[in-house]
Amino acid sequence: MGKLVKYPDGSIREVETKKVKKTKNITKANLGESFETEINESNEYYLNKGIAAIYKKPTPVQIVKVDYPARNKAKIVEAYYKTPSTTDYNGIYKEKYIDFEAKSCRELNFSFERIYDHQIRHLERIEKLGGIAFLIIEFSSIDEVYILPSNLLVEKYEESLNGGRKSIPHDYIKDNGIIVERGFAPRLDYLKAVDKYYFKKK
Amino acid sequence: MGKLVKYPDGSIREVETKKVKKTKNITKANLGESFETEINESNEYYLNKGIAAIYKKPTPVQIVKVDYPARNKAKIVEAYYKTPSTTDYNGIYKEKYIDFEAKSCRELNFSFERIYDHQIRHLERIEKLGGIAFLIIEFSSIDEVYILPSNLLVEKYEESLNGGRKSIPHDYIKDNGIIVERGFAPRLDYLKAVDKYYFKKK
Repeated sequence: MGKLVKYPDGSIREVETKKVKKTKNITKANLGESFETEINESNEYYLNKGIAAIYKKPTPVQIVKVDYPARNKAKIVEAYYKTPSTTDYNGIYKEKYIDFEAKSCRELNFSFERIYDHQIRHLERIEKLGGIAFLIIEFSSIDEVYILPSNLLVEKYEESLNGGRKSIPHDYIKDNGIIVERGFAPRLDYLKAVDKYYFKKK
Repeated sequence: MGKLVKYPDGSIREVETKKVKKTKNITKANLGESFETEINESNEYYLNKGIAAIYKKPTPVQIVKVDYPARNKAKIVEAYYKTPSTTDYNGIYKEKYIDFEAKSCRELNFSFERIYDHQIRHLERIEKLGGIAFLIIEFSSIDEVYILPSNLLVEKYEESLNGGRKSIPHDYIKDNGIIVERGFAPRLDYLKAVDKYYFKKK
């Protein structure tokens, strides 16, 4: 979803890189667009249809120095990536607060090194407060996308802290998560998967 | 709440500036802390008490150039402030999605030049989707804080677009908004004002 950068705390994180210019017609190049772009475009679709308002949070940056080369212009000349306090996306759907982290994996497992402890705790807290919280995960090598509800993510994470496996295998996510289908509009109908898990039970 | 900067679209906006180091004891200097700091500290209180999870969104920045002075370090050397897509704060409270913009005014009125059209439309949309949306406003010269629900903000804004007053006077906000009291913990108990308006009616 971006460039991999080593953070001051030693972790390896993805950072935002300049966006590729979009073309309007669906071509093979478009199909290769990033997972993040797919989510953003789906959110635009949901927003325009009045279905949901879900936004990606800006990349947190610590601004150190700003120049004013012209009266009307502020140019940031020294800044650093900051550790995000929360997750990538949040918003409102069916009157509920919705919150999730998005990850794309080349390997057939999701390593807990890819997510901060406080991000998992954030998702756990949201669930406790009555919100919808999950991980949306793409296995890019096999072109599959799933939603993994926060309670399952937390359960596996706790296991990992107690000597268990440090990652969640694809098989577990396939069996316990909810598959997200790719389509034309929206590109990634992940709210359909949200419906299946969070709104069918009642 | 920050430095005033002219944006590429010609509007004057506040931008994040480096935070003043906090002291632990309550002194007169603390009382002079920014409105934004008060909201952030109140949010920390709400979070720690398990009452709500509400965060300020990072300042949106368009990153143009990143240097890697050392293997482990990414230094942003060219970036620009971007127009925010949404509002300052959002989160979850009483299972509801909550979303607001915060403004501090020296004058005894709130000018519509201080907020983007799309931010007002965003608040309007959130209300329509069943969320809690408002403007929280400080009149710093008289030390008063109010919540102005989005429906009233939108109504006044529509009037301004149709030849009406281009600002909302303090008197209107005093009569129609909900006052927010300052205290010790939380510093600014704005969720009490939210309760009065959004949860008492039912």
